[in-house]
Amino acid sequence: MSYEFAWLNYKNKIADGFGDCLKKVALVGFDTSDRTDASILASAADEIKRASSDIFGKEALITASTNSGTDGISIVFDKTLNMTDGAYCINTRKNSVTIKAASSRGVLYGVFRTITLVRTGKLGENVEIKESPASSIRMLNHWDNPDGSIERGYSGRSFFFKNNHLYTDDRTREYARLVASVGINSVAINNVNVNDIATGLVSGYDRNELIDIAKIFGDYGIKLYISLNFASPMSLGATDTADPLDGDVAAWWKKTADDLYKDIPQLGGFLVKADSEGRPGPFSYGRTHADGANMLARALAPHGGLLIWRCFVYNCQQDWRDQSVDRARACYDNFIGLDGEFDDNVILQIKNGPMDFQVREPVSPLFGGLCKTNMMIEFQIAQEYTGQQKDVCYLIPMFKQILEFKTYNGSGDGIIRDIVTKNGKNGCCGMVAVSNTGDDPNWTGHDLAAANLYGFGRLAFDPDVTAEEIADEWSRITFGVDDLVSGSVKQILMMSWPAYEKYTSPLGIGWMISPGHHYGPDVEGYEFSPWGTYHRSDRNGLGVERGKTGTRMIDQYNEPVRSFYENLETCPDELVLFFHRLNYDYVLKSGKTVIEHIYDSHFEGAEDVEKMIGIWSSLQDRIDADRFERTKKRLEGQLKNACEWRDRINTYYFRHTGVPDKLGRKIY
Amino acid sequence: MSYEFAWLNYKNKIADGFGDCLKKVALVGFDTSDRTDASILASAADEIKRASSDIFGKEALITASTNSGTDGISIVFDKTLNMTDGAYCINTRKNSVTIKAASSRGVLYGVFRTITLVRTGKLGENVEIKESPASSIRMLNHWDNPDGSIERGYSGRSFFFKNNHLYTDDRTREYARLVASVGINSVAINNVNVNDIATGLVSGYDRNELIDIAKIFGDYGIKLYISLNFASPMSLGATDTADPLDGDVAAWWKKTADDLYKDIPQLGGFLVKADSEGRPGPFSYGRTHADGANMLARALAPHGGLLIWRCFVYNCQQDWRDQSVDRARACYDNFIGLDGEFDDNVILQIKNGPMDFQVREPVSPLFGGLCKTNMMIEFQIAQEYTGQQKDVCYLIPMFKQILEFKTYNGSGDGIIRDIVTKNGKNGCCGMVAVSNTGDDPNWTGHDLAAANLYGFGRLAFDPDVTAEEIADEWSRITFGVDDLVSGSVKQILMMSWPAYEKYTSPLGIGWMISPGHHYGPDVEGYEFSPWGTYHRSDRNGLGVERGKTGTRMIDQYNEPVRSFYENLETCPDELVLFFHRLNYDYVLKSGKTVIEHIYDSHFEGAEDVEKMIGIWSSLQDRIDADRFERTKKRLEGQLKNACEWRDRINTYYFRHTGVPDKLGRKIY
Repeated sequence: MSYEFAWLNYKNKIADGFGDCLKKVALVGFDTSDRTDASILASAADEIKRASSDIFGKEALITASTNSGTDGISIVFDKTLNMTDGAYCINTRKNSVTIKAASSRGVLYGVFRTITLVRTGKLGENVEIKESPASSIRMLNHWDNPDGSIERGYSGRSFFFKNNHLYTDDRTREYARLVASVGINSVAINNVNVNDIATGLVSGYDRNELIDIAKIFGDYGIKLYISLNFASPMSLGATDTADPLDGDVAAWWKKTADDLYKDIPQLGGFLVKADSEGRPGPFSYGRTHADGANMLARALAPHGGLLIWRCFVYNCQQDWRDQSVDRARACYDNFIGLDGEFDDNVILQIKNGPMDFQVREPVSPLFGGLCKTNMMIEFQIAQEYTGQQKDVCYLIPMFKQILEFKTYNGSGDGIIRDIVTKNGKNGCCGMVAVSNTGDDPNWTGHDLAAANLYGFGRLAFDPDVTAEEIADEWSRITFGVDDLVSGSVKQILMMSWPAYEKYTSPLGIGWMISPGHHYGPDVEGYEFSPWGTYHRSDRNGLGVERGKTGTRMIDQYNEPVRSFYENLETCPDELVLFFHRLNYDYVLKSGKTVIEHIYDSHFEGAEDVEKMIGIWSSLQDRIDADRFERTKKRLEGQLKNACEWRDRINTYYFRHTGVPDKLGRKIY
Repeated sequence: MSYEFAWLNYKNKIADGFGDCLKKVALVGFDTSDRTDASILASAADEIKRASSDIFGKEALITASTNSGTDGISIVFDKTLNMTDGAYCINTRKNSVTIKAASSRGVLYGVFRTITLVRTGKLGENVEIKESPASSIRMLNHWDNPDGSIERGYSGRSFFFKNNHLYTDDRTREYARLVASVGINSVAINNVNVNDIATGLVSGYDRNELIDIAKIFGDYGIKLYISLNFASPMSLGATDTADPLDGDVAAWWKKTADDLYKDIPQLGGFLVKADSEGRPGPFSYGRTHADGANMLARALAPHGGLLIWRCFVYNCQQDWRDQSVDRARACYDNFIGLDGEFDDNVILQIKNGPMDFQVREPVSPLFGGLCKTNMMIEFQIAQEYTGQQKDVCYLIPMFKQILEFKTYNGSGDGIIRDIVTKNGKNGCCGMVAVSNTGDDPNWTGHDLAAANLYGFGRLAFDPDVTAEEIADEWSRITFGVDDLVSGSVKQILMMSWPAYEKYTSPLGIGWMISPGHHYGPDVEGYEFSPWGTYHRSDRNGLGVERGKTGTRMIDQYNEPVRSFYENLETCPDELVLFFHRLNYDYVLKSGKTVIEHIYDSHFEGAEDVEKMIGIWSSLQDRIDADRFERTKKRLEGQLKNACEWRDRINTYYFRHTGVPDKLGRKIY
C-alpha cells in the first residue's frame, strides 16, 4: 500500500462511548434500483463495515429492512423528503442510530459524521444532529499534469496521471473516500494550465480511464470536472479559430459536450482559465469573457453541466517602470463590467484576494462588486506561498476571516460567506480549494498539512464551525483521542499562520518570496519583474499607494469598506502596507513604528516556531514514532527557514534605514 | 550541411595580391612514413587544395618533390631542424612560397597563416615571416554533457555528444580545422562537472568513438584530453574509496591510463575539477590537492601525459551572515601552501580572476604566489557573465590586460604572459579557454562571438598581437576584404567590452546578475545566497573591504601590487569596489562621486549599444543579408538588455541614496 488512511485510519484509538451502533446497517425507503443512489449507499454501508471491523473487530451486517437479522438494528438509513441534497439528520437511541436524508449523498455524509462522532466520543444517546451543507458546490481543483507532475504540488506526484495517461488504482477510491468524508462533492482532476495532451481529455483522449474515474467519484457522490484549454477545437485541428462567436467553434463544443455526457452522465462540467498567464481566451478574438463562458455554458446546459470560469486575469508582462498599472486592480477591472451578462449555469471562480494566495491579502473587491453573477471563492490549500507543506501553516483561520468579511454588496452586509453559499442562481455558488494532495503516503507531505484539506472540506460544508473546533476534531481522528495531543496539535496549528505571517512579509505587503518556485525569502525577488508585484522599498519607506493619491484600487470596495481602508486612522495594521505607502517611522496602531514592527515581528515569528517545536517535542511517545519524527524534522527545517526569512528581511531593512534595533538583537 | 565555415569560408571576397602560390604543393624532407606527421601534412595539403579551389577555382596539385609537375613549384613544405614544435617560417619568392618547419604541426600552422595572409592581401614577394607559438599548451575546455546539453553553452547543443553517446560526423573534422587554424593544440571534450556516464569515458565507455575523435583531432595536431571524475574508481564500483593514497586506487588509475594510451597513444592527458561545487576530491580523505593530482599524474607520466588540475576551489555553501569568509581569498588560500609539491607533469589551471569570469576582476593573486608550480591561465570565451553570446562582448582586450599584468612573482616583473608561456617545466604551461561553441550553424550563436574564439587562439599563439589587429584580421577573413566593414566591425568589437562593463556592475564589484542562468540584471540576486558573492549595499555605501581593515585579501598580492591596491590614492577606479567598501559620496579619480559614476556609466553603456547598432546598420548591403539581419536583431536585443541593466541598477541606487541625477536623466 502506497498510502496511509490519514484521518480515516479507524485503527487509531477511539474514545469510549457510543460505538456499538456500528454493527448492522439497514436501508429503509431508498430505491436501490437507481444505480447512482445504490452505489453511494453501498459506499456508505461499506464505510460502516470498515469502521465496525477496524474499531470492534466485528464486521457489520448489511440488510434491506429493519426486520431482518438477529442482533437487533444498529444503523438505519432512512429516506426522508423535505431535506436538501447532502443534508442529514442523525438520531440516536439506545444501541441504534438512524440517519435520515433525502439523498444518498446525505446518507453518506451522515455516516462519515456518525463515525467521526463515535471516534471522538461525541455521540451520545437520544440526540438529534441536523446538518445541511452550506455551499452546494464544495470543490477541489487539482493542478495535475499528464506527465505526472503537479504544478505547485508539494507532496509527491499525481495519482491521477502517470506517463501521459490517466489511471486508476486502489488509491483513486481511497482519495474519493477521503474527500467525501469531509463533504467534497466536486473535483477537477487536471491542471487549469491545460497543456499538451491534456487538451484532448475533453474530446476522447483516455476516455475509458476518464469514465473509470468518474464512476469511482460517483460512488462517493463526487462530480468530475475537466479543466479546459479554451482553444481546444483549434489546438486539436478541428477549427481554424477559437472565437467563441464562431458557429463552428460553438458546434464543436456542443458535440464534444454531448459525446462526453453520453459517456459520463454525471459529469459536473468544465473549469476554464482563459486569457491568463499565457493561456488562450476570448480576448484574442476581441470577445468578452462573457462571450467565452456563455458559449461553453450553452454546450453544457442541456446536460445540467456547469461552466466555472476563473477570474485570475491580469497582465503578467508588466513593465516595473510603469507605476500606473496595478495588478491588484486587474481582477475587478476585468470583470466588473460583465455583471449580469453570464448565463445561469456559469460561475465565476474568484481568488480570495486581489493578488495571489499571499499569507495576508484583503478580500477581492470583485465579491462586493458583482450583484447579478454566480460566484465561487477560490482558496489554495496547496501552500504555494505559505511554506509549501514543508512548513506548517494552518490556513483555516485565514479562510474564516475571509468568509466573515462584509462587502456591503447590494443592500445588506454582503458577507462573503453568504455570497458564496446563498447568492448563486439554482445553487450555483460555493467554495473551491486548489488541492494539496499528491502520491506521498500521507497525501499531503507535511502530516499537519492534512488539517488544511480536512478543514477546507468541513468549512465548505459548514462555515460556522470554528478553526479551533476543526483543529481539535482533526487531531483526534488523526492522532487518536488524547487531550494532551489534540490540545497541543491545536495550539501548533492555531499559532502557525500568525507565525508564518510574522516572519515573512510585513503588514500585508506580500511577495518577498523567491521567484519561480516561491519557497523561502527573496526581498527583491519580484521587485523588477514583469509580474506586477512590487514593494518599492527605498531609504525612506515602502509600499504601493492604492488610495486616492495612488492607483485608487481602494475605490473598488463599497462604502464603508472603502473609507475604512482609505483612512489611515482605520486601516488595520495587518493590511496597511497592502493599501498604503508608508515611511519607516510611521507609527502604527500598535504604537510601533513600521521599522520597529518589521524587526519585532520577524524575531517573534522565528521564536514562535521554536515554541512549536517545544510543544511538538512534548508529544514524543504519545504519537507513533514515524509521524512524530517526520513532523519534528519538518518543524526543525521550518525553524531554519524562519531564521532565514527573519535575517534577510531584517538585514534588508536595516541596510535601507540604518535604524538599529531598540532591543539590540542581532541583525546581520 | 548544418554548419557554416566561419572564418574558413574561402569563398569570401579576398584582397588582390599574392595568391597564385595556392596552386601546387610539394613536401620536402618530411618523412611521410610517420603516420602522425603524414596525416597532419595531408591536412595541410588539403587546406591548400580547399583554398586554391575555392579562391581560384583551380585545385592544387600535391607532389612529393620540387621537381615534378609542369606549372613550376608554388608551395614547398620544407622540413628544417632547429625550430620549436609548431613554429614556422614563411618565405616568399615570385610565385612561390616555402614553409619551413621542424614539425608537421608547424607546417599546418604555416599553411593556415599563409592562406590568411593571402586572403587579407598581406602576403607580398620576398618576405620572411617567422612565428613560433608562445604557449606550448593552447587549449579549449568544452563543458559538454553526455545528454548533448552544454553547461553555460549559448550556441546550441553539443557536437561531441548526443543521446548519451559520443559521435563523429563531418562537423568533427570541421571543428578540428577551425580551431587548428588559430593554433589550438589541446581540447578537453567533456564537462569538468563529470556526471553520470561521462565518468566511464576514461575506462572504456564509447571507446571506439573516443578513438575516432582523437584520430580526427590528431589530423590537425590537436591532443585530446578527458575531464575526470576524481571518484571514478569508486563510482564505477572498482574500489571502495577514491583516497589518492590508497594503493588500489592508484593501481586502478595506472591500469586505466595504460589501457587508454594503448588505444589513443596521442592522448594529451586528464583535466580535473575536484573539491569544487560539489565535485568529489582529495579533501574527502584528508589528503591535499597535491596528493590527488600527483597520484593521477603518475599514472600518466609513463605515457608522456599531462594532468591539469583546476584551482577553482571555494566554499559554495557560505552563510551570507558570516562576513569573515571571503570567496575572493579561496583560490590562493587553498593552493599557496602546496607550491613545489606537484609533480612535473601536473599543471594548475587557474581562472584569470579570484572570482569567476566577471566582466572585471583583478588578476588572481595565485599567479604571483606560486613559484615552483606549473600554471595555465583559464579564460572563458563562453560569455557566461558577459552577455551569453546574445550580446556582443569582445573579450580579447580584457585578456590582453590580464596577460600584461605584473605580479612581481619571484625576482622579476612576473608578467602573467611570461608565467603562462615560459615558466612551466618541460613546457608545461599555457592558456585555456572555456569554449563558446555549439551546434548552431555559425558555431557561436552571435556571429560576432566568433571573434572571441578566433582571438583566444591567436593570443595563445602570439600574446603580442593586439586586440585591434585580431579584430581587423578576423573581420576581413570572416566578412571579406572591405575596409569599411572591417573598420566598423573592429569599432563595434573594441567598444563592446567597455560598454558591457559600463551598463552592468560598477567599479569592479561584479555579480549583479540573475542567479542560476546568469543572464540579465538582478542587483540583489546573489546578495543573500551561499555563493559568497556579496556587495552589501546599504543607504550609505557598498562593497566588501578586502584591505587591512577587512578580509586582507589584498595581502595575497606581492609588493608593490599590494600597496597599489590597498591605497585608495593608487587603486584604479575600475577595481576600487572590488577591493574597498566606499560611500556613495566618495570621489573617484575621475572626479565623480561613486553615485555619479553609477548613473553616468549606466547611461553611457546603453548609449554605446545604440551607437553599435548605428555602426552595424551602416553595413547593410556590404554584408550578406543573413548575417547582417541576425546580428542586427541580436544588437537590438542587446539594447533592450542594456536598458534593463541601466534602469534596474540606477533605480536600485537611487532608492538607496535618494541622490537625484545631476543631469536630470530618467531614473525610475
